[in-house]
Amino acid sequence: MRPSGRSVDQLRDVRITRHFTMHAEGSVLVEFGNTKVICTASVETSVPPFLRGKGKGWVTAEYGMLPRSTGSRMIREAAKGKQQGRTVEISRLIGRSLRAAVDLTALGENTINIDCDVIQADGGTRTASITGACVALVDAIEWLKKNGKVKGEPLKHMIAAVSVGMYKGTAVTDLDYAEDSEAETDLNVIMTASGGYVEIQGTAEAEPFTPDELNAMLALAQKAVGELAQIQKAALEA
Amino acid sequence: MRPSGRSVDQLRDVRITRHFTMHAEGSVLVEFGNTKVICTASVETSVPPFLRGKGKGWVTAEYGMLPRSTGSRMIREAAKGKQQGRTVEISRLIGRSLRAAVDLTALGENTINIDCDVIQADGGTRTASITGACVALVDAIEWLKKNGKVKGEPLKHMIAAVSVGMYKGTAVTDLDYAEDSEAETDLNVIMTASGGYVEIQGTAEAEPFTPDELNAMLALAQKAVGELAQIQKAALEA
Amino acid sequence: MRPSGRSVDQLRDVRITRHFTMHAEGSVLVEFGNTKVICTASVETSVPPFLRGKGKGWVTAEYGMLPRSTGSRMIREAAKGKQQGRTVEISRLIGRSLRAAVDLTALGENTINIDCDVIQADGGTRTASITGACVALVDAIEWLKKNGKVKGEPLKHMIAAVSVGMYKGTAVTDLDYAEDSEAETDLNVIMTASGGYVEIQGTAEAEPFTPDELNAMLALAQKAVGELAQIQKAALEA
Amino acid sequence: MRPSGRSVDQLRDVRITRHFTMHAEGSVLVEFGNTKVICTASVETSVPPFLRGKGKGWVTAEYGMLPRSTGSRMIREAAKGKQQGRTVEISRLIGRSLRAAVDLTALGENTINIDCDVIQADGGTRTASITGACVALVDAIEWLKKNGKVKGEPLKHMIAAVSVGMYKGTAVTDLDYAEDSEAETDLNVIMTASGGYVEIQGTAEAEPFTPDELNAMLALAQKAVGELAQIQKAALEA
Amino acid sequence: MRPSGRSVDQLRDVRITRHFTMHAEGSVLVEFGNTKVICTASVETSVPPFLRGKGKGWVTAEYGMLPRSTGSRMIREAAKGKQQGRTVEISRLIGRSLRAAVDLTALGENTINIDCDVIQADGGTRTASITGACVALVDAIEWLKKNGKVKGEPLKHMIAAVSVGMYKGTAVTDLDYAEDSEAETDLNVIMTASGGYVEIQGTAEAEPFTPDELNAMLALAQKAVGELAQIQKAALEA
Amino acid sequence: MRPSGRSVDQLRDVRITRHFTMHAEGSVLVEFGNTKVICTASVETSVPPFLRGKGKGWVTAEYGMLPRSTGSRMIREAAKGKQQGRTVEISRLIGRSLRAAVDLTALGENTINIDCDVIQADGGTRTASITGACVALVDAIEWLKKNGKVKGEPLKHMIAAVSVGMYKGTAVTDLDYAEDSEAETDLNVIMTASGGYVEIQGTAEAEPFTPDELNAMLALAQKAVGELAQIQKAALEA
Repeated sequence: MRPSGRSVDQLRDVRITRHFTMHAEGSVLVEFGNTKVICTASVETSVPPFLRGKGKGWVTAEYGMLPRSTGSRMIREAAKGKQQGRTVEISRLIGRSLRAAVDLTALGENTINIDCDVIQADGGTRTASITGACVALVDAIEWLKKNGKVKGEPLKHMIAAVSVGMYKGTAVTDLDYAEDSEAETDLNVIMTASGGYVEIQGTAEAEPFTPDELNAMLALAQKAVGELAQIQKAALEA
Repeated sequence: MRPSGRSVDQLRDVRITRHFTMHAEGSVLVEFGNTKVICTASVETSVPPFLRGKGKGWVTAEYGMLPRSTGSRMIREAAKGKQQGRTVEISRLIGRSLRAAVDLTALGENTINIDCDVIQADGGTRTASITGACVALVDAIEWLKKNGKVKGEPLKHMIAAVSVGMYKGTAVTDLDYAEDSEAETDLNVIMTASGGYVEIQGTAEAEPFTPDELNAMLALAQKAVGELAQIQKAALEA
Repeated sequence: MRPSGRSVDQLRDVRITRHFTMHAEGSVLVEFGNTKVICTASVETSVPPFLRGKGKGWVTAEYGMLPRSTGSRMIREAAKGKQQGRTVEISRLIGRSLRAAVDLTALGENTINIDCDVIQADGGTRTASITGACVALVDAIEWLKKNGKVKGEPLKHMIAAVSVGMYKGTAVTDLDYAEDSEAETDLNVIMTASGGYVEIQGTAEAEPFTPDELNAMLALAQKAVGELAQIQKAALEA
Repeated sequence: MRPSGRSVDQLRDVRITRHFTMHAEGSVLVEFGNTKVICTASVETSVPPFLRGKGKGWVTAEYGMLPRSTGSRMIREAAKGKQQGRTVEISRLIGRSLRAAVDLTALGENTINIDCDVIQADGGTRTASITGACVALVDAIEWLKKNGKVKGEPLKHMIAAVSVGMYKGTAVTDLDYAEDSEAETDLNVIMTASGGYVEIQGTAEAEPFTPDELNAMLALAQKAVGELAQIQKAALEA
Repeated sequence: MRPSGRSVDQLRDVRITRHFTMHAEGSVLVEFGNTKVICTASVETSVPPFLRGKGKGWVTAEYGMLPRSTGSRMIREAAKGKQQGRTVEISRLIGRSLRAAVDLTALGENTINIDCDVIQADGGTRTASITGACVALVDAIEWLKKNGKVKGEPLKHMIAAVSVGMYKGTAVTDLDYAEDSEAETDLNVIMTASGGYVEIQGTAEAEPFTPDELNAMLALAQKAVGELAQIQKAALEA
Repeated sequence: MRPSGRSVDQLRDVRITRHFTMHAEGSVLVEFGNTKVICTASVETSVPPFLRGKGKGWVTAEYGMLPRSTGSRMIREAAKGKQQGRTVEISRLIGRSLRAAVDLTALGENTINIDCDVIQADGGTRTASITGACVALVDAIEWLKKNGKVKGEPLKHMIAAVSVGMYKGTAVTDLDYAEDSEAETDLNVIMTASGGYVEIQGTAEAEPFTPDELNAMLALAQKAVGELAQIQKAALEA
C-alpha cells in the first residue's frame, strides 16, 4: 500500500555516520532513506548573557535547508535576509528536544550549538535531524569531558524522533515525501530511548483525527523510536 | 492545590465579546481569566498569488503581544524589525488550526486574515486566541455570505483550544501563568466541537511524560473543549 | 456643518480609564470618540547607555496600530520587519512631548517607556495617545515614588494634545476621520495644562494657510486643551 | 549676542548653485553658511502603483547625511540596514512640503524624486534642503515641459523654509549648530513665496513657549522666507 | 617547505563527484583536499525581470558556508538576517565567472542558479566552488538540451579556478588554510581550459608583490588549471 | 579611437581638493574627469572589539553612491535597508587596499574610518576613491601625530589606483563610462607609489583575455599610477 513498498511499521534505511566533517566536536551525517542531514554540535565554553554566573549550560539549535535540497529550488534564506516561519519553528523544536536530553547544571557554563543542515530532503527532515543531532551531542559532551570542561554526566537520556501519520486511513511509520504530501495526519514524536515522551506534535491536514487514530500512531512511534535508539547506540559504539 | 483554587478540570472564567472593535468584519475580545486577546477577522476579496485562479480561498493568522501585556516589558517587534521565534510559531499554529475549520473551496477566492493581539497575558494566550478567533472567523464568513461573496457554507467545524498540563504531578486544565511556569508538561489541544483533534502539541518541560499522563491530559482537554464550544455557541447566538 | 453634528469648538466624548491592564506601572485606555488607544507606562530602573552615570532619567515612546484598527487592514509592521515612516514620526512626537513634561534630573537613573497602541482609529490617534499617555506617565511616576526609586517631583507639567484644523473654510476642534480626510489644514497642538506650547505641527493639505487661520486654530486648541486637562485631572483623582 | 555675530533677523550667507551634478534633471547645491546640501530632482515618467491610471503625478523625497557631514562620524545608514527616525521624519517633511508646491494633476503621470544629501552640516539642514530642493524641482519641471511630458503648469508656488527659534530669550532667524544646540525652542517654517504657511513645526526643547514667542518667531520667518524667495528667483534667472 | 609536504606546483587531491544529491539538474561534490563544497545547478525555464523578452538567458550564483564548516563556528547568516561581505563578494565572483563560460543567447530564456555550499573548509573554497560548479553547470545544460529547452550549444568554454600565492617567498599552488593564513600574497585565477583568463584577483596581505612574483604565480596557475580541466573532463566522461 | 579623444595611456584630468568639508580629520574631493568622489577619513581613538588590547590600529572603508550620481536614479540603499553586492565588494576593496598602506602597529589603538561617497559617476569610481582616500588618510594620520595620539610613522606607502582595460582590442588607461560599458576586459590595479602591486582585479566581460593583453594593461597601469602619485604628492604639498 505504501508508495515505497514498506510495511506500515517499517522505518526507511537509517544510517548514522559519525565524524562526518572534521572541525566540529560532534559531526554526524544522518540518513533516513533519501533524507540526508548534516548535524554538527559545536562547543563554546561560555553561555549566553541570560545564563551568566548561574552555573548552568545551554543547548540551542538551528536548522536550515540547502536551497536545492528539495524538488524545486527554494530561496536562500541568508540572501533574502529572513528565515521562513517553518525554519524558525523547526529550529525551536530541535533545541527544545535536545535540552530535554541534557542536565544543564551538570553541563556547567558551556554551550552546545547544534546545526542541522538538510542536504537532501525526502520527508521527515526534522525527525531525522533530532535523531542525528542527539548522536552529535553525545560526541560533543564526550569532548567536554575529555578536555576537562565538565565533571559529572550531562547526558540524561538519549532521544530520538520519528514522524508517524495517517495515510489512506492507516497509521504508518516514517513518512517519506510521497506519503507526507498526501497524509491526512502528520504526527512528530520525540521520545527518550526508554519510552518517555519529550514532545509530540500532531496536525490534521484535512479532517480531524480521532483518539483511536492517535493511539495507533503513538504505538507505531514507540516501536520506531526503540529501533532508532538501537541504531544510535550501534553508531556510538562503532 | 492550584494557585487559583480551581479544581483540576476547571476552566478560568471565559468571556467572548463580539463586535469589540468597529472596523473588522469579525472582531472579538476573548478573555480566559486575566488573559485577554483581541481577535479580528478581516476579509479580502482576493487570494495570495500562489492560489490565484484555483477557485479556492485562504485563511491566515498573525499573533502579537503588546509590549507591556506581560509582567516585564518586551521589546516591540515592529521596532526591532524582527518577530521572535515564539511569535512566528504561534502565528503558524493559529493559521493552521483555523484553516482546518474552513472548506477553502467553498470560501471561493477570498482571504480571511486573522489577527490575534494579546493585550494582557496570564498564560494560555495561544489557546485563547484560537478560541476567540474562531468566533471572529464565523462573523467574517457571515459577512461574506450577506454580501454575496460566498454561496455555500465554508464553515466545516467550530474549533476551540485549551492548554492542559501536568502540574505537581496532576493533570490540570487551562493553566494560568503561575501554573504554566512551573508545569512539568504543557499540552495545547485544538479540537472541533464534536471532539476530533485538529492539532496537539505537547512539550515535556523537565522530565518526559508517560502515555498515562498523556491520556489524563487529553481527557481533560476533551471536557474543556466541550465547555468552550458551548461558550462560543452562546456568544454567536447572543 | 460638521459630519458629527458637533459645534466647531466641541471635543468628542473623551474618556480616560486608568488601570486598564494589570501589569504596567501606568495603564490607560483613552477614548476620543471612536478613537481608542491603550497607553502604558513601563518603568525600568536603569537608563540607556548614552545616559549612564549622568544622574538623569529618560522617557521614550513607541506608537503602533493594530492591523485592523482601521477601515482596511494594514500590514503588520512586525511581520514586515519595518515600521512605516508615519509610525516612526508619531513615536518620536509622543516621546519628545512627554519628555517636556518631566524633569529628567528629578527622575534619576530611571527610564519610563511609553507604549501607545491604537486598537480603534477614527482620527486624532496621536493627540489622543499623548493625552492618555500623560496620565499613564503620572501613574508610573507615582509608582516610582511609592517604591522609593525617586525622591523629588519629576512631573513638571501635565500635557495634553488636540488636533485642530481648517474644515470647509472653518477652524474646528478635534477632527474625526471623516473631517480629517477632507481638511485643508491639520494642526496638532501639544500644550501644558497652563497653556504653554510644547509642540505644534501644522500641515497644509491642499492650499497654504494664512496667519489668521493659524490664530483661529490655535485659539480652539487653547480651549480644548483646557478641557482635556480637566478630564485628565478628574481621572487622576478618581 | 549671537555666536556668529549676526543680527537676530539675519540669514547666513545663502548660495544656490544650479546644475551642480550632471545627470539629474534638476541638481542644486544649496549652502546656508556652512550647511551644504546637494538637492537633486529626478524625473520618472511613471507613477507608483497606488496612483496608476488616475491621471496624477507624484513628488517624493529622501534625505540623508554623509557619515562625516557632522562633528563626529555617524553610522552609515545603508550599512546598518536602517534609517534613523530623524532621517525618516525629515524625508517625510520634505516630500510633504514639495507636494504642496505642485499641482499633481497638471504633473500628469510623472514622478519627481527629490534627494537631499547633506555633505556638511551646521544646523538647519532640513530647511536648507527644502529651499534648495524647490529650485531643483523647478528645473525638473522645466525638463518635463521641454521634453513634452507635461503640457500645463505643475508649479503652483515656490516654497522656501527657514528655522527660527528662541535663543537666550530672544527670537532669532536661521539657527546654526552652535545656537540650535542651546535654543529653547526650534521652529521650522515652510512657506510659499507669497507668505502662506505650508508647514510649521515647533518644539519646546526645555520650557514651553508662549503665544507671544510664537508670534515673534513667525514674524522673523516671514521676513526670512521673503529673502530666500528672492535668492531662489535670482538663481533661477541666472 | 609546505606544511602539507606538497611540491610548490602540486594541487591537493581533487575529486569531483557528480549526481551527489538527487533533486538538482546538476549536483557535484567537489573536494580540494579537505575543502569540500556541494555545487548544485538548478534550472528555471524563465529569466529575471530585467531580461524578459530579450531572448537571452541568465546564470547566477550564491555561496554559503555551513556554520561549522570552519574551525570555530560562524554565525548562521540566515539567522542573523544578513550575509557577510565576504559571502557577497564570493557569490558575485562565482556568478561572473560562470557567465563567462556560457553563451547567454544560446541559453535562451532560461536561468541556471548555482549554489555552492561549503560543508568543510580548508582554504580555497571559492576556487573549488568554481571548478565544481562548472561541472554542475554542464550537467544542467545537458538537462536543458535533453528536455528540448535549448537548441544550440550554450557552453562556450569549460572554466576552472585555482588559488596561487607567495608563501615564505616562494610561489605555490592551491593554498590550504595553513598556508593561506600565512601567505604574503593570495591570487585567485579563473581560466578557461584553453588558457584564457576569465578573472584574476590578487591581494597583497602584507607587503606589495612585484611583477616577477605575479608572473611566477600566473605560471603556476596556468599549469594547475590545465590539470583541473583534465579532472573535470574525466568526471564528465565517467 | 577613444570616445573622449584621449590617447591610450592618457588619464582624464585628475584633481584632488583637500579640506573639502570641515568636520573630518581628512577630507578630499577627488575628480577623475567627470567622476567625483568625496573621501573623508575620520579618526576614532579606539579600535573594534576584535583588536582591543592588542596594541594595533584599524583602517576600514565604506563606499556609497548618491542615488542620482548616475544616469538613472538608483534606489537609496539606506531606504531599502540593504546595500547592493557591488557596494559591499567595493567597500571591502577600498578598506583592504588602504590597510596595505598603513603599519597598523605604528597606528596604535586608533581607527581610521574612510568614507567614499560618489556624488557624480562616470566610470572608475572605485579607483578614484582609493586614490583620493589615500590623501585623506595621510591628513588623518597627520592629525593623529599633531594631537599626540601616534608617535611613530604609520604610513608605509602612498597608494593609488587606476582602471585599465581592453577597449576595441587595445589596452587603454582610465576608462570612462562610455568605454567601460563596452570594454572587453576591465582591470583595476592598486599600486604603491614605488610600483608594487597591492591588489589587482581583472574581469573578462565577454571573451577571456590573454597573457599578452594582461601585460599590456599592467604596463599602462604602472605608468598611470606613477602619474597619480605625482598628483597626490602635489596635493599634499600644496
